[in-house]
Amino acid sequence: MRQIAIIGIGQTPVSENWDQSLREIAGEAVLSALVDAGLTSVDGLFIGNMLSGQLSKQENLGALISDWTGLRGRDAVKVEAACGSGAAALRLGIMAVGSGELDSAIVAGVEKMTETKGPDTTAALATAADADYEVIQGVTFVGLNALVMQRYLHEYGWRHTDFASFSINAHANAIHNPYARLREEITEKDYQRARMIADPINLLDASPIGDGAAAVVIVAVDDLGGKFPAQNTIKRPTIRISGSASATDYLAVHSRKDPLWLSAAALSARQAYGQAGITPKDVDFFELHDAFSIMSALSLEACGFVERGQAPRLGLDREIGIHGRIPISTRGGLKARGHPVGATGVYQIVEAVQQLRCEAGATQVEGARIGMTQNIGGSGATIITHILESDGMKL
Amino acid sequence: MRQIAIIGIGQTPVSENWDQSLREIAGEAVLSALVDAGLTSVDGLFIGNMLSGQLSKQENLGALISDWTGLRGRDAVKVEAACGSGAAALRLGIMAVGSGELDSAIVAGVEKMTETKGPDTTAALATAADADYEVIQGVTFVGLNALVMQRYLHEYGWRHTDFASFSINAHANAIHNPYARLREEITEKDYQRARMIADPINLLDASPIGDGAAAVVIVAVDDLGGKFPAQNTIKRPTIRISGSASATDYLAVHSRKDPLWLSAAALSARQAYGQAGITPKDVDFFELHDAFSIMSALSLEACGFVERGQAPRLGLDREIGIHGRIPISTRGGLKARGHPVGATGVYQIVEAVQQLRCEAGATQVEGARIGMTQNIGGSGATIITHILESDGMKL
Repeated sequence: MRQIAIIGIGQTPVSENWDQSLREIAGEAVLSALVDAGLTSVDGLFIGNMLSGQLSKQENLGALISDWTGLRGRDAVKVEAACGSGAAALRLGIMAVGSGELDSAIVAGVEKMTETKGPDTTAALATAADADYEVIQGVTFVGLNALVMQRYLHEYGWRHTDFASFSINAHANAIHNPYARLREEITEKDYQRARMIADPINLLDASPIGDGAAAVVIVAVDDLGGKFPAQNTIKRPTIRISGSASATDYLAVHSRKDPLWLSAAALSARQAYGQAGITPKDVDFFELHDAFSIMSALSLEACGFVERGQAPRLGLDREIGIHGRIPISTRGGLKARGHPVGATGVYQIVEAVQQLRCEAGATQVEGARIGMTQNIGGSGATIITHILESDGMKL
Repeated sequence: MRQIAIIGIGQTPVSENWDQSLREIAGEAVLSALVDAGLTSVDGLFIGNMLSGQLSKQENLGALISDWTGLRGRDAVKVEAACGSGAAALRLGIMAVGSGELDSAIVAGVEKMTETKGPDTTAALATAADADYEVIQGVTFVGLNALVMQRYLHEYGWRHTDFASFSINAHANAIHNPYARLREEITEKDYQRARMIADPINLLDASPIGDGAAAVVIVAVDDLGGKFPAQNTIKRPTIRISGSASATDYLAVHSRKDPLWLSAAALSARQAYGQAGITPKDVDFFELHDAFSIMSALSLEACGFVERGQAPRLGLDREIGIHGRIPISTRGGLKARGHPVGATGVYQIVEAVQQLRCEAGATQVEGARIGMTQNIGGSGATIITHILESDGMKL
């Protein structure tokens, strides 16, 4: 497969956006990414989205967004893998351009979660879990994650407050990200006093939903300077996708032999490391799927950044901060940038590109050359891992 | 891109299936296709589905179906392009295997439309159209197609009854397909007397929805006999996918300069013909998207099988029958096999493979070597065209 480069990025602020519709939000991100890439068109669109049918009564998003952005005629499709839809769309875009079938593609994630025309958002989000064997019992999506966190505290003997640093770190980084939803610092005391949602998950363990869209433009590395000559004139490094892998697990958490082990994270990360020829030690930062703080811990463990049961230690030792051993949620993460579910995976990619281009401002990870992203659909059921590398050249 | 072969097919009868859930229907088709291919596993699953979130309150179908079929761990995703979801999933599977990233894949389409846990099915189907500019006016999906058919009758001067042969042909063929929903002959008199739904579309112009799943197993042609040696022992021809293309149009019908011209059909068909190196004259049969009889006419015209405005003539001259110039709906089409929307595109592929393997029984198109399929999402907004070829060899 041809190797892929990301040559354009775009995003909208994550917010309760009462002024724009689904197509308008998506269009803004798509057009920003095209402008950033110096292109006016692409061959295909891959739209990551989870909830448009339920909440906006709108499917056929491939046609909707190619039409709205003036890219009619193109190959366009919606991709769904629950909250992992964004990265799933990227992976399909990579294979489409990698195969040579398309020369270029837009991968966009979009979610319009406020102003629903359908069921309430909590019910809609529960469709990420197993409708027949989990949701039918009355459990919500946060409830499922609460059961997992409870088990973690029980197995490894951590206190709830030991998870505070994941949320504190995310909020501290979001302050410097103009696209983040929650740009406010929080303290350990705030964390301890936060309202309980589903014991032991409180409000500051959970990421806020929101409206938002993010987009990237991808082409083959070999076509840079050839079919896509504009890139030569832009003084920034080439960002290659050196690893892309996706794996699935049992859908229902209760089916897993070990609910504290994200086997799909381990599997997809191992494949991605292998493709990139690296180990976890080589990763300069990790945009992980901190929908709930427990998921940060499980991801860090499954991907080999810390021993099992020891992830809270990384936070307590300040190893997850911008200057730490493995910076996470460097632009706020799901926790503070916000989690417009089907768009999140593409926000992670956009943010990783910002880091690798040295455009991350106050939260720039110094000398970042290799970034990893991980996007999760369901409570660990679908997990997609990407590794991005910068050639470090500034022309 | 590596060329792709279809080495296994599976399907369930289209019906009101009150006894099986979404995952059970999908699982049956997937496992049948694996058995037919002589495989026990594949690298990835591409699930075409439109309505599971709305009607079954279940998303994350990639994980759901890989879990249910014992294919946990694999790369798996849901693909949505309204009623074109099935063929859209196939196209993504083709690019994934074509790129070399995966060695093999299952492409399955599934829809569970009866026994809804959500809104009524008519409202759910309307999400294929433009929610903000069409559906908000109160128009249904059949209503949109009725406007198009009315315009066609006006422009070209045909009578409604001149469309009867499309439905009569589909029903005549479905009698011989054990997987078809409506296995009953109809006459021109039946057609004329059928209950009106949305003038001029009556009950016998419209395809019935239903529950169903269809699946195919794909690998690279170059791997046949190598990585997939089992194929050597099965005495049937190799079925190659020689053309695959997808295109979009304005989503809203009222935005199109000419609502009687399916530009996405013309565009994708032209691309597919080019890839396969053929012209419409070389196509031995055409599994088109006869969700409504007007769509049969528009597809035949846009793909170059007949002049504009003349498609009813093909029917009146018996050119669309099994022994005609361009047989369509050879296994019943959407009209009589049934239209489980997100699954339909894969049913078309399964049926084309049956023809090319000479397994179509009483509706076998004699000497069929090249088959074309076309799957449509929305009222022509997303159109995916595939061309399949048999090498004709029987070992």
